[in-house]
This record gives sequence, structure tokens and C-alpha cells, in this order.
Amino acid sequence: MRIYDLINKKKHGNELSREEIDYMVKDFTNGSIPDYQMSAMLMAIYFKGMNESETLFLTEAMAKSGEMLDLSSVSGVKVDKHSTGGVGDKTSLALAPMVAACGIKVAKMSGRGLGHTGGTIDKLESFPGFSTDITAEDFKKNLNDIGIALMGQTNELAPADKKLYALRDVTATVDQMSLIASSIMSKKLASGADAIVLDVKTGSGAFMKEEADAVALAKEMTLIGNSAGRKTVALVTDMDQPLGYAVGNVLEVIEAIETLKGNGPYDFTALCVALGTQMLIAGGLFSDQTEAEQRIRQTISDGSALKKLADFITAQGGDADYVYHPEKLIKAKIIEPVLSPAKGFIEKIICDEVGHCSLILGGGRATKESVIDLAVGIILTQKVGDEVREGDIIAYLHGNDTEKIAEAKERLLNAYKISLSPPKTSCLIKKII
Amino acid sequence: MRIYDLINKKKHGNELSREEIDYMVKDFTNGSIPDYQMSAMLMAIYFKGMNESETLFLTEAMAKSGEMLDLSSVSGVKVDKHSTGGVGDKTSLALAPMVAACGIKVAKMSGRGLGHTGGTIDKLESFPGFSTDITAEDFKKNLNDIGIALMGQTNELAPADKKLYALRDVTATVDQMSLIASSIMSKKLASGADAIVLDVKTGSGAFMKEEADAVALAKEMTLIGNSAGRKTVALVTDMDQPLGYAVGNVLEVIEAIETLKGNGPYDFTALCVALGTQMLIAGGLFSDQTEAEQRIRQTISDGSALKKLADFITAQGGDADYVYHPEKLIKAKIIEPVLSPAKGFIEKIICDEVGHCSLILGGGRATKESVIDLAVGIILTQKVGDEVREGDIIAYLHGNDTEKIAEAKERLLNAYKISLSPPKTSCLIKKII
Repeated sequence: MRIYDLINKKKHGNELSREEIDYMVKDFTNGSIPDYQMSAMLMAIYFKGMNESETLFLTEAMAKSGEMLDLSSVSGVKVDKHSTGGVGDKTSLALAPMVAACGIKVAKMSGRGLGHTGGTIDKLESFPGFSTDITAEDFKKNLNDIGIALMGQTNELAPADKKLYALRDVTATVDQMSLIASSIMSKKLASGADAIVLDVKTGSGAFMKEEADAVALAKEMTLIGNSAGRKTVALVTDMDQPLGYAVGNVLEVIEAIETLKGNGPYDFTALCVALGTQMLIAGGLFSDQTEAEQRIRQTISDGSALKKLADFITAQGGDADYVYHPEKLIKAKIIEPVLSPAKGFIEKIICDEVGHCSLILGGGRATKESVIDLAVGIILTQKVGDEVREGDIIAYLHGNDTEKIAEAKERLLNAYKISLSPPKTSCLIKKII
Repeated sequence: MRIYDLINKKKHGNELSREEIDYMVKDFTNGSIPDYQMSAMLMAIYFKGMNESETLFLTEAMAKSGEMLDLSSVSGVKVDKHSTGGVGDKTSLALAPMVAACGIKVAKMSGRGLGHTGGTIDKLESFPGFSTDITAEDFKKNLNDIGIALMGQTNELAPADKKLYALRDVTATVDQMSLIASSIMSKKLASGADAIVLDVKTGSGAFMKEEADAVALAKEMTLIGNSAGRKTVALVTDMDQPLGYAVGNVLEVIEAIETLKGNGPYDFTALCVALGTQMLIAGGLFSDQTEAEQRIRQTISDGSALKKLADFITAQGGDADYVYHPEKLIKAKIIEPVLSPAKGFIEKIICDEVGHCSLILGGGRATKESVIDLAVGIILTQKVGDEVREGDIIAYLHGNDTEKIAEAKERLLNAYKISLSPPKTSCLIKKII
């Protein structure tokens, strides 16, 4: 088999077999197929696409390219959740304890990655002592004991995807549906969960700006997951404005804790409940949607989710006292209000601009080497549709540097569009697939 | 400027500017742009194409990537000729002396390359002592003195094309019209001729199997040449059967010499006359086609072309005695006749099969390291349309190894299709563009 022939085949729009895809992934991962041939293949795939079988074969080949986590020694159904990402997306922090409190095992592998804020791991590191640097044995033990565990993504997890993604990133071949779907799902398959609930974001702050694209991606991923023998459900959800009010690492942790106490923002709480409902169903605990939803809401009202979060933090070396006293978490030195420049209704809050403010303040990573300032970020006080007067506070910037705050403030004002009539608000949960 | 952005631009079908193409070619040649980004760009170009301006900019950037031969010190008009190649194509050997005998300067840079036979340089090395390893000064002196000179293509000639072609070759991006046209024309522009006559082959033995593709390539190349300020004309010619009767290095040299004596095959003579006519017109010697054709034919009848070949061989260190006594050239040890397996008319002689026979006999290069046996090859005795009886000799194999001859014989018989009714013969010169 020669990669040249496979490039040529794909270039002419022909289907690649499982054997061909296996060879391609294996030999690319071990370096036998050079980057320059693979990037030509990726561009051919961009133009000619991959059908459902090819996408499944690619996903499975990438999943098998490294270590496949074996969770068979963990009792019960293990459910994983993945979000395609957005601004203010602290869902895992609240959702995992809610679901685990119902008895479903939540086994998560997370990355750090680049972005406006850190990833789930960075956020959890706000708790002094907390670490994801645990062995696979401890991971399974914690899962059995408290029902929730989080590990950092190792280099052994789907290395083919890691290498392929790095190449896509520099050859303008990221935005292809089958490649996106297989990249996400290969890591999910390798992580060993029995069921997967996907949160596919759409809107100005999401990778998929158009709802139709998000729906297509959701369909592609659920098809892969179910074909690979994992019960997979996807929710297509709104990311046209930041999720909740908080953007920034510690600020989001506090918001997640408040949510588990029943004081969370309406949209963020609703999203956790919707995803949690699907996770309980996917985990086989319920078949009825209303019952599942009641059960997941109960974890907030009875305090069991908050307790689960504390147990989880403790189990991974963190100080759970901070869960009950989040006011003790590290704080920014300066809190600067941002005032509305006009009277009217908030028509738009452009996510990417808010995210960029967080990056300016130091809350995210611009490059792999960037060091995150966990304390900084933005607290919005209004959401789309809210009415404001000129001079009303619309947000607070939390920062440690006056120059950066000034820059972020100017940028944040660009994020807002204020109009005289109330805007149409968009629905949070758009589709369940 | 970032190559990533240019890949993305081309991927979406947008036009690249001259500045962008200059940057891309320069930084790819000096190694700043890695192969894996360039191959993604090449595949995007395969799918989205390049318009006339982009193709011209690419050609000029590649031409300027290395040394540009300056022929201004050579008096008169310098004309170059290029063929897209085929089986039995020994045109330069006869055509260059014919045109030079009329007073037009023929400045040629040739490669060795891979193929069923060697390139022009290999063929000329059949003359003991002949060498293309001459300085640029000698090249120009010979041009001034005898009107004809041949140099090997140096690595300094259009190095961007050399590097780009090597990448296209392994990423299935060779077959794109703008890339083919710019590759050929960049070398022609760098070689410094004032006028260029192109022989674009079409048919089973050509790179362009379909006449429409050959016409499109011819149009693209003449447009580039003329836009770059070189008078450029293209002939689209037949390559549905081998050109002339001889395939193989020495065998083709002998056929070229016989052609200059007026004893050449009808098709090969006609092609040399047609190309020569255009070269005389492109060189500004004639504007009338009939007069130009009469003049070029005269170089055969008055022996001036043969004399010019002898002068050329002498000037480059060869023994011109072999021009007048080609029977002294190196010979194969074995000459094996091939007999017609049936009675009828020769409907087809598949070029690639005949070419492969030459390769089997040792007359060509399968890899860059192959050593060519100049003596071996095939002499056809019939052409398409000829009537044969069963057992008639249709070809002779010239070889030095009985096993190879046996293998080549079997292969050669596959090249023939013999039918009961006379076939339609195709026209040699299909179009002048």
C-alpha cells in the first residue's frame, strides 16, 4: 500500500477502505508517512469529504493509535461529557458532581489547551493542592469510591489525533466536518466511557457559527459514537453570548459552586440540568426525561452535588474547605466597573470579544508557554435582552495590571450592541440528537 | 505575510496576488515554508485552480528563483524549442541543426530525466567525446559561431520548480494545468531565449491523453510566454503511435541523421519541418508560412543541416566523423525480429508499451541512478494503417541480453492491435496555437 495512491484516490473522490485508513493512520503516527503527504491528503479530504464509514474508520484508527483506557474494573455505567467549547463554559465543574451524585460514574480526561481561559484542569487548580496528575489506578479507585475522577490527557491518548491536529492547524484543514468529528470522538473512544453526552455549541462564540453546521457535526459524532458501541447523545446549544456571568478561571469556579448551591445563573443552570438529564438517561438510570430532570435538580436542592464536588476535590489532593468558602480563593487586586455607554436594550454581547478581554487580562493562553493568571476575568452583570440606562454597570473587570485593564475595557465595550427595542432572544437548547 | 493565510485564501477559491506568489515561491525555495504547508497549497490549487495572472506570476517567480541566463551578448534572435515528450521523440537532434542552418540561433538547455530512453543529452553522448559540460561563455561563443549550443540544465536553473516538482511528484498534484504550464515555462524563461516553440503531444503516449487537454495546456503556455515578453507558439501534435521508426538512443541518433540526409520517416520529417517553419517565423526570418517551410526543407536537400550537426558535435568535443558514418556508432550484440501474430491492418501501436520495451532492454532510466545502454532499442518496420501478413516482421529488437530480449518481445506484442479493416489514421499536426 502506498500513501501516494490513497491521496490520488481521495483526490478523485473515491472511498477509502478500513484497511487503507488503518495503514494511513498507523504509518503517519509512526513517521513512515511524511507530513507533506499527509497534508496533501488532508486538503483532498477537505475538498472531497469522507463518508460515514470512512469517518468511523478514521476515528477508530486514531483511538487505537495509543493507549485505550480500560474502565472495566469500575462498577456501573461510566458516562463522559464533551463540549465543543465557548466563552464562560464552566459546565464540567458543576455538571460532573451533579451526575456523580446520582450514582452515574463520570470519568473525564481533560486538556489544558489554548483559549480565553484555561481548561477544566486549570480552573480546578484554583483549589490549592488539587492535581490531575494521578495514576490510572487512582483514577479507577476514585471512580469506584466517589464516582468522579479527572485525569490530564496523556500523550498516549490517541497520539495519531494529536499529530494530525497539529498538522491540520498549520495547513488550513481544521474546518472539515469529518476531521473535526473524528478528532473529538477518537479521544472519547480511547477514554473508555460507556456512554457519551456531547454539547455542541453554535453561535458567534462557537466554532460552528451556523446552527446547521452544529447539527451536522452533532449527527456525525453521535453516529460515530453509536457505531463504535457507545451510547451517544448530542445537544446543540446556544453560544451567541457568554454562558452565565463569569469568564475567567477562579471566577468561573465560584459561579459553578454558586450554581451547585442553587444560586447559579439561569442559563448555566438550565444547561447543566439539560446535559445532566441526558447523562442520567444515557447511563441507564432513567428512561423518562421528566424523572431524570427531577433527579438531577434534586442534587442541587439537597446539597449532594456540592458535597460530591468537595469529595472530588479532596480525593485529588485539593482543599475542600474552599468549596464551602469560595471567598477564600485567590482574588484579583483591581476590580474595575464597566459602564453602559447608552440607554436601551442589550442586543448583542459578542462572545469572542469578551473572550479576548479575558486573554488580555491574563486569564488564558495565547501560546502553549503562556502562564495563566487564575484570578483575573470578567463578571457580566447583564445578559442579552436586559434593559440598561446610560452609566449603568454592565460588567466588572477583575485584573492585576491597570494597563491591561484599560485595554480590556476598551475591548469589552466593543462587545456590546445596545439598541432601542428589545431583541429577539435565542433558545438555549436548540436540539437533542 | 503567512503561508497559512494564503493556503486558506486559495482553499476558498480566491486569487493570489503577485506579491503573495513571490513570497510563497521565495520562502518555499529557501526552506522557510515547509513542505507540509506547500503540499496543502498544491492540493488547494489542484481543486481551485489558478487564473491566467496567477499562473504568469508563479512562472515568473520560479524563473527568477535561480540564475537567469543572459544571452544578450549573442547576436540575432535566439529560439528555443520544447516538447512535452513521447516515445521515439528525437526531434531536437534533427530540428536544431535545420533551424541553425537557416541562421536562427538555437540555444537549448536539456535534462536527462527518467523515461523509456535517455534525454537529448544522453542521445548526443552516442558521439564519442561529445559533452554538454561547457561553460556559459563557451555556450554563448558556440551560439555566435555556429548558431547552436546545448547545455545540461544546472541546479541553478529555476530551483523553485525543481523543488516544487519533487513535492508534486509525491503528493499526487502533478496533473494540474497551471502547475504543469508554469513548471515548463519557468525553465524556458530562465534559459534566456527570445522566442519559444512548443510541441505539445497528445494521444496514448503523451502526458495529455485528450486533445482538449493538450490544447488547453498549449494555450496556457503560449499565454505565459507571450505575457512574459517572449514570442511563443505551440503545436499540438500526435503521439498516438511512436514517432518515426526508432526508439532507443543510438537508434534515434541514426534516424535523425538519416532524416537530415532526406531519408527520414515521413511523420518525423513532417514534424521537424512543421516545428522548424514556426521557429523561423518566431525568429523573425519569415512571415509567410510557405516560404519558411521551403527554406527549412532546403536545409535537408542542400546538406546544410547535416553539416550544421557535424559542426555542433565538433564544437562540443565530439567526433563528427560519426555524423557522416553513423554505422560506426556503438551497436547492440543481438538483433531479434518480432513477427506479426496475425494478418490484417495495424490498428494501434500502444506507445507506452513500446516505451516499456526500451526500458526493459536497458535503454532508459527507471531510477535516477540507472545506467543507460545507449545501443539498445526497437526499430519498428510498420506504422499504424500498414497491412501485414501473419509472420511478417513488424519490428526488430536491439539488445545485449537474451533474457531481456525475450521479456521485451512478449511486451512488444502487447503493443499491437491488428484488425481486419484499415483503421482511421490520425492527423500529425492537430493545431497551431
